[in-house]
This record gives sequence, structure tokens and C-alpha cells, in this order.
Amino acid sequence: MKRALYSLMLIAFTIGNTMAQQYEANWESLDKRETPEWWKDAKFGIFIHWGPYAVPAYAPVDEVEGVYEKYAEHYENRLLTKNELFLKHHAKHYGENFTYQDFAPMFKAEYFNPDKWAELFQQSGAKYVVLTSKHHDGFSLWPSAESPRWNSVDIGPHRDIAGELTEAVRQQGLRMGFYYSLLEWSHPLYKEATLDQWVDEHMIPQMKDLVVRYKPEVIFSDGEWDYTSDKWKSEEFLAWLYNESPVKETVVANDRWGSETRSKHGDYYTTEYDLVHNEEGIGEAGSHPWEESRGIGTSYGYNRFETTDHYFTSKQLIDLLIDKVSHGGNLLLNVGPKADGLIPVIMQERLLDMGDWLKVNGEAIYGTTAWEKRPQDMKEQSVFYTAKGKDLFVICTKWPEKPFKVDGVEKVGKVSMLGTKAPVKASVRNGKLTITPPALTPGNTPSMHAWVFKVENGR
Amino acid sequence: MKRALYSLMLIAFTIGNTMAQQYEANWESLDKRETPEWWKDAKFGIFIHWGPYAVPAYAPVDEVEGVYEKYAEHYENRLLTKNELFLKHHAKHYGENFTYQDFAPMFKAEYFNPDKWAELFQQSGAKYVVLTSKHHDGFSLWPSAESPRWNSVDIGPHRDIAGELTEAVRQQGLRMGFYYSLLEWSHPLYKEATLDQWVDEHMIPQMKDLVVRYKPEVIFSDGEWDYTSDKWKSEEFLAWLYNESPVKETVVANDRWGSETRSKHGDYYTTEYDLVHNEEGIGEAGSHPWEESRGIGTSYGYNRFETTDHYFTSKQLIDLLIDKVSHGGNLLLNVGPKADGLIPVIMQERLLDMGDWLKVNGEAIYGTTAWEKRPQDMKEQSVFYTAKGKDLFVICTKWPEKPFKVDGVEKVGKVSMLGTKAPVKASVRNGKLTITPPALTPGNTPSMHAWVFKVENGR
Amino acid sequence: MKRALYSLMLIAFTIGNTMAQQYEANWESLDKRETPEWWKDAKFGIFIHWGPYAVPAYAPVDEVEGVYEKYAEHYENRLLTKNELFLKHHAKHYGENFTYQDFAPMFKAEYFNPDKWAELFQQSGAKYVVLTSKHHDGFSLWPSAESPRWNSVDIGPHRDIAGELTEAVRQQGLRMGFYYSLLEWSHPLYKEATLDQWVDEHMIPQMKDLVVRYKPEVIFSDGEWDYTSDKWKSEEFLAWLYNESPVKETVVANDRWGSETRSKHGDYYTTEYDLVHNEEGIGEAGSHPWEESRGIGTSYGYNRFETTDHYFTSKQLIDLLIDKVSHGGNLLLNVGPKADGLIPVIMQERLLDMGDWLKVNGEAIYGTTAWEKRPQDMKEQSVFYTAKGKDLFVICTKWPEKPFKVDGVEKVGKVSMLGTKAPVKASVRNGKLTITPPALTPGNTPSMHAWVFKVENGR
Amino acid sequence: MKRALYSLMLIAFTIGNTMAQQYEANWESLDKRETPEWWKDAKFGIFIHWGPYAVPAYAPVDEVEGVYEKYAEHYENRLLTKNELFLKHHAKHYGENFTYQDFAPMFKAEYFNPDKWAELFQQSGAKYVVLTSKHHDGFSLWPSAESPRWNSVDIGPHRDIAGELTEAVRQQGLRMGFYYSLLEWSHPLYKEATLDQWVDEHMIPQMKDLVVRYKPEVIFSDGEWDYTSDKWKSEEFLAWLYNESPVKETVVANDRWGSETRSKHGDYYTTEYDLVHNEEGIGEAGSHPWEESRGIGTSYGYNRFETTDHYFTSKQLIDLLIDKVSHGGNLLLNVGPKADGLIPVIMQERLLDMGDWLKVNGEAIYGTTAWEKRPQDMKEQSVFYTAKGKDLFVICTKWPEKPFKVDGVEKVGKVSMLGTKAPVKASVRNGKLTITPPALTPGNTPSMHAWVFKVENGR
Repeated sequence: MKRALYSLMLIAFTIGNTMAQQYEANWESLDKRETPEWWKDAKFGIFIHWGPYAVPAYAPVDEVEGVYEKYAEHYENRLLTKNELFLKHHAKHYGENFTYQDFAPMFKAEYFNPDKWAELFQQSGAKYVVLTSKHHDGFSLWPSAESPRWNSVDIGPHRDIAGELTEAVRQQGLRMGFYYSLLEWSHPLYKEATLDQWVDEHMIPQMKDLVVRYKPEVIFSDGEWDYTSDKWKSEEFLAWLYNESPVKETVVANDRWGSETRSKHGDYYTTEYDLVHNEEGIGEAGSHPWEESRGIGTSYGYNRFETTDHYFTSKQLIDLLIDKVSHGGNLLLNVGPKADGLIPVIMQERLLDMGDWLKVNGEAIYGTTAWEKRPQDMKEQSVFYTAKGKDLFVICTKWPEKPFKVDGVEKVGKVSMLGTKAPVKASVRNGKLTITPPALTPGNTPSMHAWVFKVENGR
Repeated sequence: MKRALYSLMLIAFTIGNTMAQQYEANWESLDKRETPEWWKDAKFGIFIHWGPYAVPAYAPVDEVEGVYEKYAEHYENRLLTKNELFLKHHAKHYGENFTYQDFAPMFKAEYFNPDKWAELFQQSGAKYVVLTSKHHDGFSLWPSAESPRWNSVDIGPHRDIAGELTEAVRQQGLRMGFYYSLLEWSHPLYKEATLDQWVDEHMIPQMKDLVVRYKPEVIFSDGEWDYTSDKWKSEEFLAWLYNESPVKETVVANDRWGSETRSKHGDYYTTEYDLVHNEEGIGEAGSHPWEESRGIGTSYGYNRFETTDHYFTSKQLIDLLIDKVSHGGNLLLNVGPKADGLIPVIMQERLLDMGDWLKVNGEAIYGTTAWEKRPQDMKEQSVFYTAKGKDLFVICTKWPEKPFKVDGVEKVGKVSMLGTKAPVKASVRNGKLTITPPALTPGNTPSMHAWVFKVENGR
Repeated sequence: MKRALYSLMLIAFTIGNTMAQQYEANWESLDKRETPEWWKDAKFGIFIHWGPYAVPAYAPVDEVEGVYEKYAEHYENRLLTKNELFLKHHAKHYGENFTYQDFAPMFKAEYFNPDKWAELFQQSGAKYVVLTSKHHDGFSLWPSAESPRWNSVDIGPHRDIAGELTEAVRQQGLRMGFYYSLLEWSHPLYKEATLDQWVDEHMIPQMKDLVVRYKPEVIFSDGEWDYTSDKWKSEEFLAWLYNESPVKETVVANDRWGSETRSKHGDYYTTEYDLVHNEEGIGEAGSHPWEESRGIGTSYGYNRFETTDHYFTSKQLIDLLIDKVSHGGNLLLNVGPKADGLIPVIMQERLLDMGDWLKVNGEAIYGTTAWEKRPQDMKEQSVFYTAKGKDLFVICTKWPEKPFKVDGVEKVGKVSMLGTKAPVKASVRNGKLTITPPALTPGNTPSMHAWVFKVENGR
Repeated sequence: MKRALYSLMLIAFTIGNTMAQQYEANWESLDKRETPEWWKDAKFGIFIHWGPYAVPAYAPVDEVEGVYEKYAEHYENRLLTKNELFLKHHAKHYGENFTYQDFAPMFKAEYFNPDKWAELFQQSGAKYVVLTSKHHDGFSLWPSAESPRWNSVDIGPHRDIAGELTEAVRQQGLRMGFYYSLLEWSHPLYKEATLDQWVDEHMIPQMKDLVVRYKPEVIFSDGEWDYTSDKWKSEEFLAWLYNESPVKETVVANDRWGSETRSKHGDYYTTEYDLVHNEEGIGEAGSHPWEESRGIGTSYGYNRFETTDHYFTSKQLIDLLIDKVSHGGNLLLNVGPKADGLIPVIMQERLLDMGDWLKVNGEAIYGTTAWEKRPQDMKEQSVFYTAKGKDLFVICTKWPEKPFKVDGVEKVGKVSMLGTKAPVKASVRNGKLTITPPALTPGNTPSMHAWVFKVENGR
């Protein structure tokens, strides 16, 4: 019944929207779209990797012979490609006659509480959430007609995880989005010979169903590397998304739509563990919206073997957010829930620490842009900059023991430190702003992680 | 790699066979095909129902309020349709948050030995084997590309059950065939709105894959009742099967190809628990090849709750075979293996008992036809007839204590009882053959179940 | 609460019974006890081996290099003693880090229905039931205080199997008894150094608890071979059993009470698979009550790998019963239920077949004795004898095609065949009875397995 | 073999030590023993609660109707006493026919790495480790002969957890001890009527085995409340422990040896969650060694439902340590590992944070005593005191923004803050020491949790 309804909705939208064909199905046209403001202002989102891989929750935590197979969500592929470490671990703990698919009923999610998750995300200061609706293993977290018996309603959790979480996230005032993998490692149709069939019968219907059903405002496509965007028919999909879909006004799509598209097309460019991100990496595209995704530890999917050696500290995560935002990017920080539906407490704490810092200093993050006069390398000096309207924010990730200078400031209004009333001295001379830090002690500092000077009219 | 190979084979056959378009894709043309002799001579086949339903192996063994839900293989459907008995049993033993799909990894088939199965079937005297390649639950017993993660290689047994059994059965000199369900209860594409897609993308490719891959010589279609054969595109499939498939010369297809086709079209008609079979039931079609399928107990799929009250005795099964064959039909006797891959010993024994009887009396079964002069109702008098060449076989399912008469015999050669050298007296008068049973004791009878008089030149 | 009650009962019996110290705690005195009549008349009992070993239900069904490890109930010991076949099977199916104890929660007995079991036993014609209250693995099928967390109430089935079955068996009018193993393979107290502690703290209290709690009328002791009866304090236990226990009048104890006691002491001697039983084996003790125990297949505990090759046929079992009874013994036929609580259908059928034969021929079995004039070797000629009062029963396990003679009969009254009214001719001359079998056909024979001539006043 | 060896060792010690009967088996004599110095100097230990209760890992995290069942290690008891919340949770997730014992094989400890545990404990600054060798559920973490099939070698982990951890802990230079529960909830012998048997056959042998086998230097007895110490024969055991055991010189035993013994007898008194501890609680015994045990969250055994709301922060734990030590006590901080053998990362981090603080400030903790002139209520003013030799340590748990006074100091040498070279001003006048905090910033503070002034010669 529900499925029939969704099909009807799909048809309704398809018909009803044919008037406003604003975008053509080619990159030239699609690239003209403006990235919606809400996303550019949000700065901080939560990424969630969850699926049957949370059952073994395994990836070797140490580099072995120069190779680091750190992603627990790649478990199926590591078995398929006969990775020695994974095979050994698998045989020992699950036996040789046991495949990745056999994990599905053990992925019970029996304590999954979407409201608690959403509340935690809200408290972290994040403004949007992106869930792996389907990762490379093809397991869909919603009752996808294209993935019968291999989705979270048919087997394992027996719940519409995508749907329930979407509702809870929106109740907290956050935006909801989905990660979606174009490829599937072990689907027999996913191969050269049947790619058209794959795209037409499986992938596109599945993505459209996801959009029409849950109206996500972020589409984080992935697994695009095997084929160019024309093979995937990505342009057609995006034209539909921008012209006809129920989220055409507000949706934001990333740049992973074909082997040639990263950092070239899409509402925002993506970076990951600095693999592509640096000033060169985002190149001329430096002004284009972008987002760095990052695990809270070394894996995206939950890896039970990670220790304090592998988790970022709260300090490191706050610095990471500052770094990305001061360079004009967003941070999409990943959490990997356990198979039982609970989020490890260490992850909860990290998120809450970020939220605490943002409660005081969020003014320097949300709605800002990179400061146009920022120096080339901000990291070395532990001073970062963001801008909003006429104001400049100077963010110190180390406490400035002495007065310090900021180049490129001609005039200045009031200068203060967020979170404290302790007076800050500041003066401008020869295009340099000198800031003298307030006299704070370990007892009255507004933070132990990073300190923000708000320079009013400094721009 | 293998999949690619099969695809190529499929294409090769499709191209290579286009010359001999003997049959058109319509019933008029298809109905002209002669049912291959091998099947008509075989008389006795083994049916196998096996799938995840063997894990719960449950159906209530007693009638409850006039309803008798006796088929264990219908477990999924009984849950989907909220049958009270099944729901209660399910909740008690597996919990409420557990679906049929969760059974798949428990269907391990860890002791499945196809050679032992095949040897048993050979010893039973059966001449062909029909395996549920896919039942209404959609679980395919081979690595079907159309059923990813829901087949016996991807999840559960991790073996190509159809392939392994096919090879073993042929090594025993028996023919191999497949049951295939057109419908699937819980596949989201299986519904009115998407039926074409279902047929074109799922059903037809799956059936063709099965045929090309394993070259089965029996296709036992089922689950056809929801739509007429044109919706299922059955005529097209059969035309392909008869014209182009690798088994076009020897394959035998049944009559379940659409809601209107039973006992009308197909190489042979099917009956089941006498639901349709009787002289009227098969009507004018009485002379058309037909086959009765029957569980060895009350269920097809293994039902662990069946007792001696529910299993047919060896005597009853032999009588059943005699009854069907003497009416011109075949018997397809079903066994339901356990989830661990073993066939219950009671089933083994039944099959071996049939084999023992057939070793002595098979002459009266294999290669025979119904005797054209058989009386209307043979059951009452416990005397049955088959014919082969000039010979008539008179089969008594009760020991004839006295001489008895057979109408319609004009002349007669030697009359003997199979399995014994004890002399039989016989005489013909007025078109009646009188047979005087031999003087046998409980100690020298060739059987305790049924006795065959071979009437040479009695026809 | 219940436990307290039982303790009180134990004390009450101990005190209340001190007056009638009929037997002293030494074999000389104990051996004077008369074996209760009911047991000698019963002839046929059901043995049940059930415990966690029913989960793997494994023993190799074929002899390997001259060794035949056929008992599935020995699974734990085969692991402990590193039997190669068992270790290999275990590692493959359960993994290396899995012990026998880990099976306990998988021994669920979820469909155990004591009433159905008892009804089946009643229908088999058996007159008593002997359950393994505790086998060598120490797992007790009742809430034994001496075996905490290792009994059927604490772990696994969560039911008092011994108690429930006792009640059901008695409701069917049968007597109830228990098998009990003196040794336990893996109990740390069971060893030379702590044997006294073992006997005093574990074994004796456990046996007394069993007797006081359920009042069994058969005690089938076993696992006695490691120590002599004085070490086990068997004489003390039996004196208590015969003098003070609630079943002192009717209980029957076997002969396994120490390494020196078999076929020497005890109410009845035991044989097993003919290992000790033959005319010599039971020696002068030939006139002492004895009982042969035998699996219905090759194993006592359920072995899922047994096939028709391993199960006795109904004919063989009936012959076995006739053989034992005609030699003065009882038959204790074993069934091995599955871990789910169901008795395999093949076993049901065997029992029912025996019951059918006994319904007709029980007169020649129950309440009889061996005929004092029976020939040395009855087997060869397939004719066996039992006696009751003045009557002699001549039992043919092959149909006598011709008249045959019985030596040692001086006079005779009416001679008839049980189950038929067909007249039997008989005459006596020179101390020989000549019987001419009735003229029966395969259609009117009262049995297909064995035929009984009742010779009235033949003794 | 091993068991025999241990028995021999036990005997050897018993014989070999009979010369030095220093203590008599009565409290008067036992109380004269001096608590070994090592323990008084150690100050900080790690408690570990681990057992089958780590499988459900459940306790309600919120107070329900005034009752707070917060201990996950009480799971079995909550089922036995039919606690509604536990019963509901249990039925939902494990089914109604599932007992606590059935959890045992699921307590696999498959990733238990004692070396990693020990390394973590060493890094935390703790000086000793106390493992629940056996909790109230009776499950022993070593191959206890008194607990067959219900110990970590026979079922579940299949490892000698106590033994392996002992070795690893000692390799890290820490002392090893054991918690041991005198009572067992579900052992049938544990009841009034059979208490002597319980004590003589089960409890005492088990405790002695533990001592002789692993030579623990802490015995943390518990579960003593049901009976007085004479019933438990605690005095006898302690006399043995102090006179004859292999650890007689160094072992430290707590005060839980009978319903009347807490805070009265034993090498050290125990408090728990401030239930008994306060200045009155430890009364005149204020000068007697004592130890507070505390979960790192609200439960001792792992409770998967605890969140950041339930875990102590690192700051709180450091304050707790300071509070206990400055009052003369030790802190035994508990961690609850997961059933898979891993310690939750949040717990790892807490321990490492404590270690970091102790690396800088340990001088004010280890080997100190409470300062004899400490004020009544130190908490209010956030200033705490410890003493060692002539030095006084003034510990501020809040940063002192202004100069502050310490009463009771007559003279003073150098005053400094641990971890920094920043100068500290101090002066004494009228028996009051005035300390002026150094000028530290958020950037150069040696800690963010608590600051220690070392007052040389201040005592």
C-alpha cells in the first residue's frame, strides 16, 4: 500500500513539475546553479556510517606493511578481494562458511533511538545530518523496492531507519541528507556488461525513491569512480533533482557523480582526510563551496578496535572545524553507531564538547566566510580567520601569551573575546591590528581549546 | 567471470537458434508439440521442496476450525497474511522482531551431500528429479543475478545447490528438472503496477538463466494463478524454450503458465492432492500426459511436527503410484530435506521401500500406459491395470484370496505373477479373463504391498 | 522452597524407616533380595538417552580404521580425549573456541511434550521407561542441587524433564526408572584423590535426591568401571534403597555398581549389544533376571547421520525382543530424541510396529519365562520358545513352510496361532510335538514379522 | 594434572607453615595485624567487574519511581527477584525461556588482551588491580574445581582470565588482588540449612585455591551480609591467610567478613558511593586504613545504556581521588569491560586522564597521609590537604583567583606549584599560611583539573 503511494507520488512529481525546466541535463547548465545559502551557512554537519559492517566492526588499527585498511565499512570488499588480515579475522571469529550477507540478521539495531541520536546531534552544534542510506555493500536503510530482502525493514533491524531518523532530525530543527553509493560491490548487475540496466533499473529508481520519499536536502553521492558521469546518467538525475524533485529549491548535491567530476561539478566539492584538500587541491575552485568529511576516529563505520590512540580529541576536532571553516569549507564529522543502535560514549562526548565550544563561539563559525585577506598558511601560527558582514573573527587555537599582530586590517571597532567580559586591548597601525589578550587565568577562561577575538568593523 | 560466461552463453543460444523457429509464441502452436517420450515412460519422479522454510519447519499438523494450513513451505506467506497460528508460533520461538528473511543464515545445509541424495533417488526407482529452484519466497537455490543476496550462494548454505544436485542426479542416470515460482510473495516489484517490469527484468531472465545454465529437462512452473499467461508472457518463454533453448528437444513443461492454463496447455497437466484430478478433472484431457505431485507427508517443505499419523506408509505410496500410473499419469513424490541438508530417515525408508517394490514390479509401471479397457472405478475393487505392447498388467493392491475376473480380455498368453515362479492359472471366456492367484504363503510372497499379474498377449 | 521441602522429605524418610533394616550393606545380604515380579513380567522397556549431546548429534556412522566411535552421547569424551574425527567435525561446525559446555543453551527441548512421548511408549507395548537422569557428561535432567547451572532447569530446556516425564509415563500406566552415571568425565572432583568427596558430597546425595524426589522403580546405574563397589559405597546405597527409600518394595536395580559387579550382583544383570550376553556370558547366572539394552540404531544418543543402513528394521527389533525374552531376558530398547524435543519419526514408527505385533502376540511375551526345555541354539532354526503356566509358546521368526517338530513336549492341549482363527494341526509322539502351520496367504496373515503358536498344556 | 599439582601445593603450604602461627582465629588477634605499607602508600587501584552480566550489559539508567537499579552486575538477581524492569527487558531481547545461565556461552571475551589491559592500568597511575574472581552469580573467572561448568575455562571465554590478567598486571609492576563473593544467589547449597556445607565444601576451598594458585595481595571479600563472620568461618580463613598462605606477609584483606564486620575488622575498611563513608561513618576508625570503591559510571559491570550523563568526567574522578586521599583513604576505581573483552574507549580515556594528572601531581598522592590539621569540611572551599614527611600538599580543585589562607601552619620552607616553575608567593603569620597563586594563563597551566601547592617543611 505504502509502496503504491510512493509510486504515485513519484509520478505526480514527475508530471507536476515539467513546467519549470530551469536546468538542462548537462554540466554547463547544472553548474550555473547557486548552492543554497542554508548549506553554506551551516558549516558543521554529522555524517553517519551504519550498516551490517557494524556487526564485525573490524578493521586493523595498525598499519601493516605500509598498508592501512582502516575502514570498517569496507569489510565486505576486503573479503571479496581476499585481504589477508580480514580473511584471517573473519575465519577465526565467524568461520569459513560465513559471508558478509550472513551478518544481516545480526545487525539488529535493537536499541536504536532516533530521537536520542537527533538530540545529541543538535547538542553538538551541527546543522545537518547525512546518513548512509546505502553504502557500497548495497544494504539500504530504508525499504527500497530495488533492494528486496537486503534492506533494514526486510532483514536485521526491521525498521525504516532512514525514515525514522529523518523525522527525528527535523524535529530538532536540523536538515536531513543522505549518502548514496552509485556502485555496489557484490550486486551481479553492477558490471560493465549490464551497466545500463544497473543505472536504469536499480540506481536511478532507488535514488529517486529516496528523494521523493524522504525529501533529503543533501545528496552525498559516492562510489562514482568506476565510470564517467554520462555512464551513470548523473546529469539527467541532477536535472530532475533541480527541476522536478520535491526538494528542488533547497537540496545540495556534492561532486561525486562520475570519475571526472570531483572538484569540478556539483553544489559543493568534497575532500576527505586531506586526500584532495589543500589550497591547490581545491585550486581555483577555492571559492566554490566545499566540505571535508572525517571520521571521529580512523574509520567511518564503527571499529570496535579503535582506542584513544585512534580517536581525535575534542581539541583536535575543534581545531579541525576551525581550520575548515576559516578556509571556506564545511566539516562533515562522521559517527559510527554500534550494531545494537547505540552511539559509543566516547563519540557522544566528542560531539558534546564541540557543542559546548560552539555555544560560546558559534558566532565565529555559523554564517561566516573565509576572510579574504587571510594569510597563505594559517596553521603554523595557530591563528585563523573568519568573516561575517563587517566583522572579522580571529581564532587562536593556542593561547596567545603575548600581544600579536593581524595583517590587513585598516580600521577597527570594538575588539572582544567571545565568552568573557575581560577587556581586550587592540590598536591598528599601518594596516596591522595588534591584539593584546585579556588577563585570563585557568579559572576564568571561556574555553580550554580555542579562543575567538571578535573584531567589529575590522573588514 | 562465471556470470559473464553465462551471459555470453545466453546470447550465443539466442543467436544460434534463430533458424529453427518451429513453434510460434501462441498456445495454438505450442499445443502441437509432442510431449517427449522419456517423460511419459518415466512414471515416477522425485520432487524436492527446500529453502529457508526448512529452518522453522513448521505447519500445524492438525486441522484448526476447519482450516488446515499444512504446508510448511508457506511459512513466509502465513506471517505476511497474519495467520494466527503461525504468528503465535513465530513469536514464541523466534521473537516478534524477526522476519522470514532472518532465517536465511540459519538455512546452512551444512551436511548437504548431493551424491547421497541422488543415490537415494536412484534407489527409489524414480527416473527424474524436480527441485524447487525458487519457491514463492523467492529464495533461489542457485546464484541468480536477479536475486542478489537472496540465494543459496550469497547467504545461508553458500553453495550452488541447484548446480551440485543437477550434476549428482545425472551421474545416477536420472533426468533433472526444476520447479520455478512465477510469483514472489514479498518482492516489491511483484504487483499489478509493475508486473511488466517484474516479468521482463526478473522472471524471464531468471528462468532463462536457469535453463541455459543447468539444462533442466523438466520445467515445473507454479504460482501462476494471479495473472493470465499473456501477462506472464508465458507463450514467448515457451516458444524460446522449445525453439532455441539448449534443451529444446527433451524438455518437458507443465501446465501452470497463467490463471487459465491448468489442464489446458503445456506438455503435461498437473494435479495435486486430488484437488483437480479425477476423471472429470482431467476431463477430455484424460489422454493428455499428466502428473500428480504429492508430499510424502502432509507438507511439501519439511515439517518437523509431522508424525507417523501424517506420513504416508510405504504401502499407501505404492498404491498411490499404481493408481496414478494405471490412470495414465506420473507420480511426482515430494521429499522435504531438513535445514542441515539431511533427508529424514523416515523419508529415506519410504523411498527405498518403493524402490524395492519397483525392482520386482517395475515392468508393470515404466513405459506403460493406462489400459484402454480399464473400468471406470478401479479403486473399489483394488485391481488396477496398465498396458505395454501386447501385454496387460493386472495389479492387485489387496491380495486376491479367490479367483477373480477381468472384463475385456479376449485372448491370453502366459499369465504369471511378477517376482515368483509359483504358477498362476488363467482362462478366458466370453471376454472375461479369470485369474486364480498362486498358492503363496506369508513366507514366499514377492511383496506385502501389491501383486502384479503379467498377462502376456492379453491385449 | 521446593528444595527445602525435598530436603525435609529426605530426612523424614531417613528417620522414619530405620525400623525395618532388612538388608545389610554387603553383597551377601543384598543378593538375597528377590527381584520384584513386575519387572520380570514386563519384558520390554524403553530407554531414553537425552542431553546436550543431542545438539551436535554426531558420531561417525562408518567404521574408520577398525575403530567405530558410534555413540553420539560420548561426544564430550571424544573431545576430551582428542579423537581426531570428533575434533575435526567439531572445529568445522562449531569452531575451535567452543566446548561441550557451550552446547547447553542450544539444547532447548522447545517442543518437548512428555504426554506425547509417554503415549508413544505405551503404544509400543513397553511396560517401563528408563531415562538418563544424568549421563557421563554430568548434565542432570532435573534440578539437582549437586549440579548447579548444569541441569535442565538452570540452563537449556529450563524444564524438569525427569519430573515431567515421570508424571506422564505414570499416567499411561507404565513404570518409571532412571539411568544414572556414577562417573562424570569432566567434573574436577571425579578423580582418585578426591573420590571420597565425590561419592559423599556429589554422587550419593544426587542419587538419593533422585529416588526421594521421583520414586523411580528402576535404577540403571552405569559408569561404574573405574572403581570397585566399596569405593563407590554402592552397598550402603543399595541397603538404603532396599530398606529405607520410598520405593523399597518395588524398585529394581541393575548390576553396575563397581568394576567387579556386572553379572554378579544386583536385581538384574545387564548386557549390551551382545558384548557380554550369551549363554556363557551370563553363565550360571542364566537363571538370574537380566536385560539387554540396545539402541534403535547404532547410537544411543541421537545421531543425525544415521540412515536406514543404521536403524534396525521393525522385523529385526521384533526378532530381538523374541530372542531376549525366549532366553529369559528383558529388552530395553533405546530412543534418542532430538535436541528440539521431538522423537524422529523413524523411531516412532519402529515403536508402533512393535506395539502392533505385541497387541496380537503379547501373550507370548509378557509374564512369560524362558522355556526350561529350550534347545541350546534357537537362532539357527528361527524357532523360539517362551512359557507361562502350563502353556508353551512357539515363536517362528520365519514363516514355517512345512510341518516342524518341537522336542521335549510330552502332551498337548489345543494348539493355535495367535491372531488368526485358521486351524493349526498338531500331534505329539515320542516326546516330540509336530506342528503343521495353518494355510495362510499374504492376505490374511496376522503378522509379517513373526508368528506365535500357543501350545496349551504343552508343559 | 594441573589440578593435582595445585592440590599438592595447597597441602605443602598447609604443612610447611604450621610453625609460625602468629595470629589466632579470632578478631581480637587478627585485628592486631598491621596493614602492609605498600597498600597504604598505593592510594589508587583499579577494580574490574566482569562476568556473564556483560552480555546483556543492562541496568535502567534512570530512576524509576524512586528506585534506582543501577548495577548491571545484578542482572541475575533482578530476574530471580522478578524486578519488573529487568523482566521486561529480558523477555523482549532474549525471550521468556532464557535464563541468566544461558548467557554464559555468549560471554566470549574473544578479544580479551590482558597485556593491553595491564598497560592501560599502569598508565592510569593505579598501583594495584582487583578483579572479580567470582561475583554473586558464582561464575568464576578461573578454573575453579568448586564451580565446574560455570567458570571461564569450561564455558564462554575458555580462558583462565584471573591467571592471565594476574601475570600481565605483575609484568607492569602493579599488585594483583581479587574480589570474591561469599554468597551466590542461585547456588542451591547457599541457604540456611546447608550453610556449613556451603562454607566447608565450596567457599573456603574456593578462596584457598584462589590464594594458593595466584597469590593475590588484595582480598576484597563481599556478599557477607546474610551471616555473621562466625557462620562464614571468616576468622579461620583470615588466620590461615595471615599465618600460612603464600601471601601472608603482603596480603591485604578488606572488612566484609560477616554482617557485623564492616568498618570494624579487616586490614582496611570499605566504603562505596558514600553509602557508609563520612567522618562519622568511619568514626573513630578514621585513622584506620580505608578504601572507597566507585564505578567509573553509575554501574560497576558494563552497562551499555550509560551515556555521558552517567559517566564521571575526568575532572570529577580526579577530584574524587583527591577527596579520598586527603581524608586518608584509597580509591578503587572500577571499570566494566565489554563481553567481547574490550574496555570501552570512554573508560580508557578517563584512566589516561587520571594518569596524566598523576604524572605531574602524584607526589601529593602516593605515600601521603591525611594532614592531621585538616579542617572538618574541605569540600566547600575546594581546598584539600595531604602530608608526607615534613611536607604539606595543598590541593585546589578550583583555581584560586586570589591569595588564600591555610590554618595551622606555623612555619614554612619553599612553596611551589607542581608542574610549573612559575613562582609562588607564601608567608606565615599567626599560624596561618597565605598562598598567592602564580600568574598562570590558560596557556601555561600544568593542569585544567586541580592544582597542587607543595609546602615544604610546612608540618
